Amino acid sequence: MTVHPPLEQIPADILAAADYEDRAAQHIPPPTLAWLAGGSGTEQTLRANREAFITVRITPRLLNNFQTASTCQSLCGTSLEHPILLAPVGHQQLLHTEAERAVARAADATGTCMVASTLSSLPLEDVCAATAASKWFQLYWQPRREDTLRLLSRAEAAGYQAIVLTLDTPVQALSRRAHIAGFRLPSDTPPNLAECKPLPQRALAPGQSILLHGMMSEAPDWDDLEWLVTQTRLPVLAKGVSHPADAVRLKTLGVAGQIVSNHGGRSLDGVPASLHCLAAVREAVGGNYPLLLDSGIRSGTDVFKALALGADAVLIGRLQGYALATAGALGVAHMLKLLREELEVCMALAGTPTLSDINPGCLMGD
Amino acid sequence: MTVHPPLEQIPADILAAADYEDRAAQHIPPPTLAWLAGGSGTEQTLRANREAFITVRITPRLLNNFQTASTCQSLCGTSLEHPILLAPVGHQQLLHTEAERAVARAADATGTCMVASTLSSLPLEDVCAATAASKWFQLYWQPRREDTLRLLSRAEAAGYQAIVLTLDTPVQALSRRAHIAGFRLPSDTPPNLAECKPLPQRALAPGQSILLHGMMSEAPDWDDLEWLVTQTRLPVLAKGVSHPADAVRLKTLGVAGQIVSNHGGRSLDGVPASLHCLAAVREAVGGNYPLLLDSGIRSGTDVFKALALGADAVLIGRLQGYALATAGALGVAHMLKLLREELEVCMALAGTPTLSDINPGCLMGD
Amino acid sequence: MTVHPPLEQIPADILAAADYEDRAAQHIPPPTLAWLAGGSGTEQTLRANREAFITVRITPRLLNNFQTASTCQSLCGTSLEHPILLAPVGHQQLLHTEAERAVARAADATGTCMVASTLSSLPLEDVCAATAASKWFQLYWQPRREDTLRLLSRAEAAGYQAIVLTLDTPVQALSRRAHIAGFRLPSDTPPNLAECKPLPQRALAPGQSILLHGMMSEAPDWDDLEWLVTQTRLPVLAKGVSHPADAVRLKTLGVAGQIVSNHGGRSLDGVPASLHCLAAVREAVGGNYPLLLDSGIRSGTDVFKALALGADAVLIGRLQGYALATAGALGVAHMLKLLREELEVCMALAGTPTLSDINPGCLMGD
Amino acid sequence: MTVHPPLEQIPADILAAADYEDRAAQHIPPPTLAWLAGGSGTEQTLRANREAFITVRITPRLLNNFQTASTCQSLCGTSLEHPILLAPVGHQQLLHTEAERAVARAADATGTCMVASTLSSLPLEDVCAATAASKWFQLYWQPRREDTLRLLSRAEAAGYQAIVLTLDTPVQALSRRAHIAGFRLPSDTPPNLAECKPLPQRALAPGQSILLHGMMSEAPDWDDLEWLVTQTRLPVLAKGVSHPADAVRLKTLGVAGQIVSNHGGRSLDGVPASLHCLAAVREAVGGNYPLLLDSGIRSGTDVFKALALGADAVLIGRLQGYALATAGALGVAHMLKLLREELEVCMALAGTPTLSDINPGCLMGD
Repeated sequence: MTVHPPLEQIPADILAAADYEDRAAQHIPPPTLAWLAGGSGTEQTLRANREAFITVRITPRLLNNFQTASTCQSLCGTSLEHPILLAPVGHQQLLHTEAERAVARAADATGTCMVASTLSSLPLEDVCAATAASKWFQLYWQPRREDTLRLLSRAEAAGYQAIVLTLDTPVQALSRRAHIAGFRLPSDTPPNLAECKPLPQRALAPGQSILLHGMMSEAPDWDDLEWLVTQTRLPVLAKGVSHPADAVRLKTLGVAGQIVSNHGGRSLDGVPASLHCLAAVREAVGGNYPLLLDSGIRSGTDVFKALALGADAVLIGRLQGYALATAGALGVAHMLKLLREELEVCMALAGTPTLSDINPGCLMGD
Repeated sequence: MTVHPPLEQIPADILAAADYEDRAAQHIPPPTLAWLAGGSGTEQTLRANREAFITVRITPRLLNNFQTASTCQSLCGTSLEHPILLAPVGHQQLLHTEAERAVARAADATGTCMVASTLSSLPLEDVCAATAASKWFQLYWQPRREDTLRLLSRAEAAGYQAIVLTLDTPVQALSRRAHIAGFRLPSDTPPNLAECKPLPQRALAPGQSILLHGMMSEAPDWDDLEWLVTQTRLPVLAKGVSHPADAVRLKTLGVAGQIVSNHGGRSLDGVPASLHCLAAVREAVGGNYPLLLDSGIRSGTDVFKALALGADAVLIGRLQGYALATAGALGVAHMLKLLREELEVCMALAGTPTLSDINPGCLMGD
Repeated sequence: MTVHPPLEQIPADILAAADYEDRAAQHIPPPTLAWLAGGSGTEQTLRANREAFITVRITPRLLNNFQTASTCQSLCGTSLEHPILLAPVGHQQLLHTEAERAVARAADATGTCMVASTLSSLPLEDVCAATAASKWFQLYWQPRREDTLRLLSRAEAAGYQAIVLTLDTPVQALSRRAHIAGFRLPSDTPPNLAECKPLPQRALAPGQSILLHGMMSEAPDWDDLEWLVTQTRLPVLAKGVSHPADAVRLKTLGVAGQIVSNHGGRSLDGVPASLHCLAAVREAVGGNYPLLLDSGIRSGTDVFKALALGADAVLIGRLQGYALATAGALGVAHMLKLLREELEVCMALAGTPTLSDINPGCLMGD
Repeated sequence: MTVHPPLEQIPADILAAADYEDRAAQHIPPPTLAWLAGGSGTEQTLRANREAFITVRITPRLLNNFQTASTCQSLCGTSLEHPILLAPVGHQQLLHTEAERAVARAADATGTCMVASTLSSLPLEDVCAATAASKWFQLYWQPRREDTLRLLSRAEAAGYQAIVLTLDTPVQALSRRAHIAGFRLPSDTPPNLAECKPLPQRALAPGQSILLHGMMSEAPDWDDLEWLVTQTRLPVLAKGVSHPADAVRLKTLGVAGQIVSNHGGRSLDGVPASLHCLAAVREAVGGNYPLLLDSGIRSGTDVFKALALGADAVLIGRLQGYALATAGALGVAHMLKLLREELEVCMALAGTPTLSDINPGCLMGD
């Protein structure tokens, strides 16, 4: 199967943001596609994320007046034209030669807030410089605190407006699909981590396990989190929240906002759809506290459903990768435009002129 | 694939009204069929409409006496021999050269009330003249009030007995199936709208959206509805109701009856099956208030289920189009006869001699 | 496809009673098979009958003592070695040249109670004479009371021990599968009805329907039922009950026992699985009142489930026809032996030595 | 299809314990595979066992500290490094020439407790001698008490640490899949039973059944169980429990622990998934009482789910057979290593450092 170069213009048969998924298969080598599209284990959670959106139903409402309509939102001091952010996606050079720079330009063109990944193919400073729109930096905790601090300082210096700390992958679950397709991550250290060094190998006592005593000893714990939020003037958001009790504790410790997410079905297989966790987390943290969702969104209708269940905004991961591979910055910008229009059609037909009109009462069982 | 001309007689293998769906594929060009059969988005709501009927179960009852059996009904001053109306379907010339005239003749032959569409291929006066049976006129709100008034006056003058105002499509959702099949609506202005002129293009302020600020500014709001019901001596029914609160407000404002409908899955994809909305709407508006259902009905058993859940009558859209394309007026009349017989078999086996015997107690879960 | 003559011995690959279903396809002409196997409409109820059994789960129980084990049952004065009866199946000459005589001999050989149909291919007297085991006569109400009385007298004189009055088919629903396969019932009047004459054609008033005013005027009503039970010294059972209120009224009017049934999915399509109606009917009529189930049973496990949900016994229809066509009397006897063994395995593993130990507590959700 | 000899090394495409299922098909003759993989009847319970695990969802928890992490467990006086035991599987010579000796060596290498079967291909003394790890002996009740006693004495003398009495198969249900594939058990008496003699054939009275009066008279009852627990100094566990009342009675009679199991879907078809029985049994027997689960486990995630629903440990049957046939002792050891790692990944991502942290609160609906 031939892999086609990225397109210079948008093909006429892309009618919906979700269409980038099928189309991208022509522009991504199969092993890379398996990595981008696949989930961990037997992909139960990957499927659950999608099914969760499908079972939610929006109630049509009639005759409301839209003179004061708006999709604007403000989160952690960042003003957004619309509640759709670009999720952190690492290693974008695998998808397009322009990598994160293309995504940053698409964000710039569409007024979208981008979350740059610790594992980006380009240095965080280069990504930041490529967009005048809002941007946040996604941080993976490093085993040495000084390495974590250095990433924080660089993000602050570059001009990022918030830190998104990913907490849901202290150990990495296997993507069978990617493994079977022969996918391997690039062997080069990602540029943001060039100065970080691994800890010296830790000797395990008899009966100790590499996973539980080895890897988990390098993962952050509640003390580390408490320390981290004091080390930066930027708001720190936590990514990967599912349980209300974790959400409450994070909020109490000064975390400025949270992203309900199961890493798009790429962390533990067998966990619930993130959409199903959202309402309980919102209930636990109360209103007036920034809450985002990622995992499973493929349309503006899905965005509406997430907002109705308690999210202030959403992040787009896989569709970002598909659009990037299909048509570079142009593709990502077009995908975002479609998502926004799809959201607006929902708002029009659900009778909700502003985001604050979107609430659980807009949904029905079927 | 060859498109066959309409048949002159009913084929022997049409045993049920629903059989017109399969058969029609031989008589409708594929793009037109995609337009008629398809729903918006990924057709979740189109499927939900059908599944809703399948999950409802009718309870057989024994030994009731049928000497006083009847399928008669009276709605908004219109007497009906049976509770099955012909839904407004526009552009019928796409399906048969006789267009709405054939449907009107079928209505005439079977004593069925027809609802003529604003977007009919023939002028509303011609449609009206072709049937001596009851008929209602379906109205799309026009951006200029004088255009709306002119349509009202013409409908009154022609002899329609009620106005059906469609409210569920202030913006039009995309039918992917029709788009992909290459379907385009006729470029001619429908004859009923020949005298209507579009509003001058409205300049959008920076950050305003074509959808939310452009199109939605031409859609009717509650004030428009309140004005409209005072402008005609005919009863006004509202079509496209899903939420009980909208139903109550419409009733309070003088709307004479309502049609629970999601436009057959052609408006917002992802809304609930209309059948699932019916009981709550009936509960909200109370008894003794005309309530109809369309969206998803393909058999007399479905009609029975809708009546049991609170409808006084139902409207038939797609089956009308399929029967029209298959065998013109004869096909539509035969399809209506089958639907009525299927309803009567249900009534016989559910032990309900009259429509007022059909209530939620006739249904069971499974 | 060749239709093979009935087998002289049981093939080695028939391991379970249900295997006769597949096997019978080699011994029944396709139109006849469509008639025997099919249900009405789109066969929703036919499928629901099967799915209902599959969703019920039996709880294994341990270590109970089986010294006093027994499968005996007594119903309406009839002693049964096991709770599995042969349901009334008409027109058995379509399946085997020996017709009901073969079934009667199988009943004789296995101590099974047979219910002979009004529509049997052989006269009711011949069927009765062919078995020394218990037998009941199934009665279809005839439009003239004298015809009904004559059938009653003949059944009494022949030696039947009970009358089973079928109530669930006052109008006949269409079997699409049989119609499409070209099946036609034999044109000869069934021998039991040779002396019955149709009523003179009734003139319908304008607006009256063949179904609701024509056919339904020939169906029995509550007054007819009340009259009927006074016309015979035999116990009268009612077949085709689904609703608890009908069950209570029938019991009050002197009906001696009832069969919960939807005619195996052959009457109204869209009614619930009969198994799902059983518990509510048992609750309504109380204990110590004969209640049977047919519709959907294909194994001894299914028999156990029906007993656990309130049935005292079950009737076997389609499997009877499949076994008859496959191997005549031998096939029917073998099928009954397998069913009984399957029931006994269930009893052993559910820890229930007698039928009276089988109750709702033997079941669990899953 | 060629049957390949067992592999000398682990193939690279076995990424998860469950992969041994597919792989084993290359190393097991089809009839033997049908016997190992199949369930009784129509395999409803076999499927239910798997579906039960799939519908349970694990909740991810964040930032817990794992310094004191451990997978250790102690059951009936046996210390376990991890809560995964090898279930009793008879006739292992059908799968590998080294039979139970290979399994015993794998248990030895991985510190796993093995449960040796009464029906093992090798004498129980030989199996015991092949592993220095903990081992239990599975006992089938023998019709003569002296035969049962002899097995107990041999197990004690050989050095087994507990007796596992299987109670769920007083009569054997048919495996259609194995029968159709032509599978026959070895005609030789299993070596552990060489000294046991069948009871003289018992004459059945007229109307008595081979199943209910013949076979069931040789099965143990509550009196036998009560006697048995007094005949050995070893703890006796009961295998095959589903109902809470049986569990309570067994505990009261001195049974030291229990295994919730439906024999992997090999006993009565149509019983619930064992996972669905677990919580009620745990509730009934209270905490601090050894409870294990088998039936349906194919991954470490499944192990975690069973522990969360109340099990202290689990037993692995089919995967043991698949791994044995694929690569002998090496395969079984590798399969166990994978299962343990999969469990550890779950523990890491569910935030549960020890087995006692795993409770129903770790699960969510979806």
